[in-house]
Amino acid sequence: MLTDFGFHDPFVGIMKGVMLSIAPKAQIVDLCHAVPPQDVRTGAFHLRVSVPYFPKGSLFVVVVDPGVGSARKILWARTAKHQFLGPDNGVLSWIGEPVLEMREVSNAKLFLEKVSHTFHGRDIFAPVAGHLAKGKAPAFLGPKCKPAWEIEFPQVKKAGGAVSGEILNFDRFGNAVTNIPREEVGKDADIVFGASDLGKICTTYAGKDSGEVMAIIGSSGYVELAVRDGNFKDHFKASAGDKVESRS
Amino acid sequence: MLTDFGFHDPFVGIMKGVMLSIAPKAQIVDLCHAVPPQDVRTGAFHLRVSVPYFPKGSLFVVVVDPGVGSARKILWARTAKHQFLGPDNGVLSWIGEPVLEMREVSNAKLFLEKVSHTFHGRDIFAPVAGHLAKGKAPAFLGPKCKPAWEIEFPQVKKAGGAVSGEILNFDRFGNAVTNIPREEVGKDADIVFGASDLGKICTTYAGKDSGEVMAIIGSSGYVELAVRDGNFKDHFKASAGDKVESRS
Amino acid sequence: MLTDFGFHDPFVGIMKGVMLSIAPKAQIVDLCHAVPPQDVRTGAFHLRVSVPYFPKGSLFVVVVDPGVGSARKILWARTAKHQFLGPDNGVLSWIGEPVLEMREVSNAKLFLEKVSHTFHGRDIFAPVAGHLAKGKAPAFLGPKCKPAWEIEFPQVKKAGGAVSGEILNFDRFGNAVTNIPREEVGKDADIVFGASDLGKICTTYAGKDSGEVMAIIGSSGYVELAVRDGNFKDHFKASAGDKVESRS
Repeated sequence: MLTDFGFHDPFVGIMKGVMLSIAPKAQIVDLCHAVPPQDVRTGAFHLRVSVPYFPKGSLFVVVVDPGVGSARKILWARTAKHQFLGPDNGVLSWIGEPVLEMREVSNAKLFLEKVSHTFHGRDIFAPVAGHLAKGKAPAFLGPKCKPAWEIEFPQVKKAGGAVSGEILNFDRFGNAVTNIPREEVGKDADIVFGASDLGKICTTYAGKDSGEVMAIIGSSGYVELAVRDGNFKDHFKASAGDKVESRS
Repeated sequence: MLTDFGFHDPFVGIMKGVMLSIAPKAQIVDLCHAVPPQDVRTGAFHLRVSVPYFPKGSLFVVVVDPGVGSARKILWARTAKHQFLGPDNGVLSWIGEPVLEMREVSNAKLFLEKVSHTFHGRDIFAPVAGHLAKGKAPAFLGPKCKPAWEIEFPQVKKAGGAVSGEILNFDRFGNAVTNIPREEVGKDADIVFGASDLGKICTTYAGKDSGEVMAIIGSSGYVELAVRDGNFKDHFKASAGDKVESRS
Repeated sequence: MLTDFGFHDPFVGIMKGVMLSIAPKAQIVDLCHAVPPQDVRTGAFHLRVSVPYFPKGSLFVVVVDPGVGSARKILWARTAKHQFLGPDNGVLSWIGEPVLEMREVSNAKLFLEKVSHTFHGRDIFAPVAGHLAKGKAPAFLGPKCKPAWEIEFPQVKKAGGAVSGEILNFDRFGNAVTNIPREEVGKDADIVFGASDLGKICTTYAGKDSGEVMAIIGSSGYVELAVRDGNFKDHFKASAGDKVESRS
């Protein structure tokens, strides 16, 4: 389960109740419920960096769904290794595995009897996930389809030895995750954020003293900006979309 | 599990350790742990809107318990579909299912050997839940009883075409959940909060532009007040108990 | 699982994906993920008060690891009742059970193929935990060893009828947990914090009126300082390390 529901309300718990009512032996894993509200791009990024680590056959139930109750479709997708259930808003665009089959989830027989306008997680996603977990054939979900919405992963730009990227999101510690992949950073390149030169990529956080700014290759393989023992986001009042450069 | 323990401490994890020590195969679901500290009414409401979605036979372990360590009783209740374990403070008052059997949980043989004054979740609720999950007959819990405390669900008042209700609580997004049920709102009624007329009920969040105030039927079937892409609670500095009207 | 990862990111979920990829039937319990970032002492304390409540055979996977990516070792330890996996930084120092066997986790065949410098939780701890859960013999982990780092539990000091201790950490409600064990507080002793005399130990929170300061024996058997229906930490701007005395 990947949602923007947070932990304040019983929404996630209710979804689990519905899933387990249908598939009592399903094993449910919370991937993350702290996607910023309606932030489809962060949801898509979390999915991108998590999918490779999940068992073959896992079903990802993704509810980051600003269009809930509108006419947006709900999609089911299958790759060689995983399955996905999510709204047709681009949140499934960056899964990083070729989609072998995609269907529009439209068979209301698999939904709860009463479908609200505001909580499709409970009324559609959860029961459909339960039926899939219990072995229902995907053909029952609805007709094959193509996604109506796709979002593009922001690619870096290269010019004259420099690689230009941007901040995608921030982790709990306030570290900034960028879209600059490890492979694009030259051995002797400096990472530059605004007027600050963060120096060369450090191998570990121990590469700088407490309070110093630094760049590191994050666990997902992208350049991250950090303040040793501090909070980069707060320190620089940084935002998603802010430019970051690697200069050789 | 429904508690006000939050996630800051290992309290919930410890309760699970105790339950699994007794019933190693129990399937434990976190319904919600973010009930505001000691807020029995919000706990009761979360329970009310969640219970119908859980599998037959589920045991709800409810620890919202300002009276922990005092002489308040602990109750076990059974309905046709579910079981409940909770303090006798009204938190089980709104479950919405007729109680067929209620017992006072008083058999100390089912508790941990040492019972603290401050953490009955660990020392009483968890081991009793473990024993029940493992199939212990409810008669072992203690004698049949009636609840000493009940809280009344706040009913709306009707006068001259207007329906008067109040805000019950707020969800993660700052939306205000009221006690006005869908059925009480006339087709052409306007929802009014203080000096603000929120207009007619919208079918979806997409019914208003970003930043506009709106009323919607929430997923639990009650009127909710929202700011599209915003936070109603912060915007109006609203509180639980604030009056809300539906005017035809 | 006990970590300082919080809930903002998919880190915990990814670790579960890795564990379940190796040991699909493992039962994973979240002990706590809200250890303050890199706070080894609070992690060690949470472990100390939780371990006794977990089933025999449980494996505690502890990732509070400021030295991730440095040369610090990773340890596996076994007691008569439990197993532990954690960095060699003292976080396993207070488990309260005699260690019967300890090994350095160094067999890279049990790790993920690519090991990052920043997320050993995913790349080392989770797969090793998965292999252990699936029954891999500990001898495969690496050679027997001793811990390089141990931290001492802060002991109280006694002089002239007074027992001097300190605040260790704060729970969700802002209650201060101290290192003064129940046994060290005389029947007629007053608990003193700075210039405030909190009076004698109360048996329950109901022992004082709303807003009054109070001392109580917490659920772990240590003196705790509280404000009835309030927040001790905020009220006194208290910090870990602040002195607390029991005066007879």
